[in-house]
Amino acid sequence: MPKPPDFSSWSCPLPLRDYPSVVMGHGGGGKLSAELIEHLFLPAFRNHALENLGDASIVSGASRAGDRLAFSTDSFVVRPLFFPGGSIGDLAVNGTVNDLAVSGARAMYLSVGMILEEGFALACLARVVDDMARAARTAGVQIVTGDTKVVEKGHGDGCYVNTAGIGFVPAGVEIGPSRARGGDAVIVSGTIGDHGMAIMSVREGLEFETTIQSDTAALNGLIEQILRAGGDAIHVMRDPTRGGVASSLNEIAAASQVGVVVEEREIPVRGEVRSACELLGMDPVYVANEGKVLVFVAENRAAAVLEAMRQHPLGSDAVIMAKVVDQHPGMVVAHTAMGTSRVIAMQIAEQLPRIC
Amino acid sequence: MPKPPDFSSWSCPLPLRDYPSVVMGHGGGGKLSAELIEHLFLPAFRNHALENLGDASIVSGASRAGDRLAFSTDSFVVRPLFFPGGSIGDLAVNGTVNDLAVSGARAMYLSVGMILEEGFALACLARVVDDMARAARTAGVQIVTGDTKVVEKGHGDGCYVNTAGIGFVPAGVEIGPSRARGGDAVIVSGTIGDHGMAIMSVREGLEFETTIQSDTAALNGLIEQILRAGGDAIHVMRDPTRGGVASSLNEIAAASQVGVVVEEREIPVRGEVRSACELLGMDPVYVANEGKVLVFVAENRAAAVLEAMRQHPLGSDAVIMAKVVDQHPGMVVAHTAMGTSRVIAMQIAEQLPRIC
Repeated sequence: MPKPPDFSSWSCPLPLRDYPSVVMGHGGGGKLSAELIEHLFLPAFRNHALENLGDASIVSGASRAGDRLAFSTDSFVVRPLFFPGGSIGDLAVNGTVNDLAVSGARAMYLSVGMILEEGFALACLARVVDDMARAARTAGVQIVTGDTKVVEKGHGDGCYVNTAGIGFVPAGVEIGPSRARGGDAVIVSGTIGDHGMAIMSVREGLEFETTIQSDTAALNGLIEQILRAGGDAIHVMRDPTRGGVASSLNEIAAASQVGVVVEEREIPVRGEVRSACELLGMDPVYVANEGKVLVFVAENRAAAVLEAMRQHPLGSDAVIMAKVVDQHPGMVVAHTAMGTSRVIAMQIAEQLPRIC
Repeated sequence: MPKPPDFSSWSCPLPLRDYPSVVMGHGGGGKLSAELIEHLFLPAFRNHALENLGDASIVSGASRAGDRLAFSTDSFVVRPLFFPGGSIGDLAVNGTVNDLAVSGARAMYLSVGMILEEGFALACLARVVDDMARAARTAGVQIVTGDTKVVEKGHGDGCYVNTAGIGFVPAGVEIGPSRARGGDAVIVSGTIGDHGMAIMSVREGLEFETTIQSDTAALNGLIEQILRAGGDAIHVMRDPTRGGVASSLNEIAAASQVGVVVEEREIPVRGEVRSACELLGMDPVYVANEGKVLVFVAENRAAAVLEAMRQHPLGSDAVIMAKVVDQHPGMVVAHTAMGTSRVIAMQIAEQLPRIC
């Protein structure tokens, strides 16, 4: 009989060997996630488009009337599947639309891959699918292809969803994580931490005067206005999901080899989100968002872009929360409300597993 | 505290209500899979590209120098992850390359979404990733974007992989499941049932003189030769994966409203595959393949296409196994070796769960 492979002798690249097995943090968007990408995926799949490490991949050699093709994917394993403000269906559509949009692409087409667990209620599946259809209509994208697999009870969790998306980057738009420059203003489009704390409040049974709602939303409309107002002064955009604003700023600081100075007082945080974070011992800068964008824009266009963002319903609370400096490249430093400074480091792993 | 949603009152489209919960067959590629698509996904996501129900979606309005964009996705949950002849990594790359190729597209770019289970050995992950990289090089495609999520132990099975793929359909190539015509010859590129029986032999511990190997392979090279030899006489191509040759023929018969007559003696089946099928009470026409293609070609070009296929290493055993007739539209009938006829029906569900 054919024997199962003996993998005890199989090798694993350093420094992954510090963890012989997958731990939750490998999916958390922090340092462990970055290690997997750097030491395993990049060396294996190496090519120019992948190495850019943007939210979507801009593919050279494929275009439509001069617009470059952008391609992105995300899997969603959020628990619970339904939460205040949304569901895994909304997240799966909005997440991929946003990855395309922050890369400067106009999102056009999505694929959907479902992995269902035996015994999952079809009524729940129907609700997830309805949420996806509604979110796709709202974002103006089409779901054009899909696939469904089923695994035995105890090998899934109701429903996992993968979406991949295609968009086109208009000629002249050049945005990427390595394009931040000293002097850039960093605008955040609204309050941070809403999504992560909405999920955690449900899981932990926290009660506040108002229910914390996820901010899940498609940002492509807002981003169109940002690009119109900012033009080539827009250097980087990113949606700070897993790992929150802190991880996104660190990734961009490292990719662009610049420093980032955050004005902590300027960061917009809802009162109930702040309370939930304090109760759970979390820092909102590390908490996931699903409908916010960070915009790195040249100083002289920052006011115009901020004004344009505030005209849009999803950007009405936008503020300049940080600036880019030439000092301490690769490092994010916060000026605190008490007048002191602290380093906002990349976390080893996400504090909140299965947040998206 | 926010309550979890009460879904007891949520509705579910008929006739899905016959099964209030997901069963393994919903992922099997048979009638239950078709019901999910027809009654749930299609009504929710309705658009022209999706309704075509090809292996990939040909997107109107997006092209490259006149070539139309094709987009496809598949999730892979095969168990075990490594089997004679391949692994989930090979399958995930070859499966999506093949879905694009049978749609007439030149496969170009893949995305990879991983859902890992906490505790999965990183050495195994490294092997899966190596297999993907090698398969991508062999097929001549680039993996340009990806995502990794981790779920707790007991909510996955080591590693699930989603791939989505982009290709371009050259001008003039018009292939689709509804284009079969009376008189078409149906060529199969080689022996059937190899993949499914390789998996089942491992699971069931069956011993034969030779180990049954999966046929997992990228078909894009073979299909290029088919298109060069057949031109616009190539009406339909399909890779008969889940549900086997029987399901593919039934789907095409239904979509084209034609009958299909199979010459059972002509179907190439390896001796050890036939033995394994007999032992397990299975019919090879329902068993999955991962490196075979069915080609519907106009009668007058069939010999030339068959000859071209046999020149290619992946088509050396190609034969004409069936023909298309105007009688009994939507139905597949086999002429047996004993001179009788039998209907090859669509199965309710796949006999073999998690075969890909």
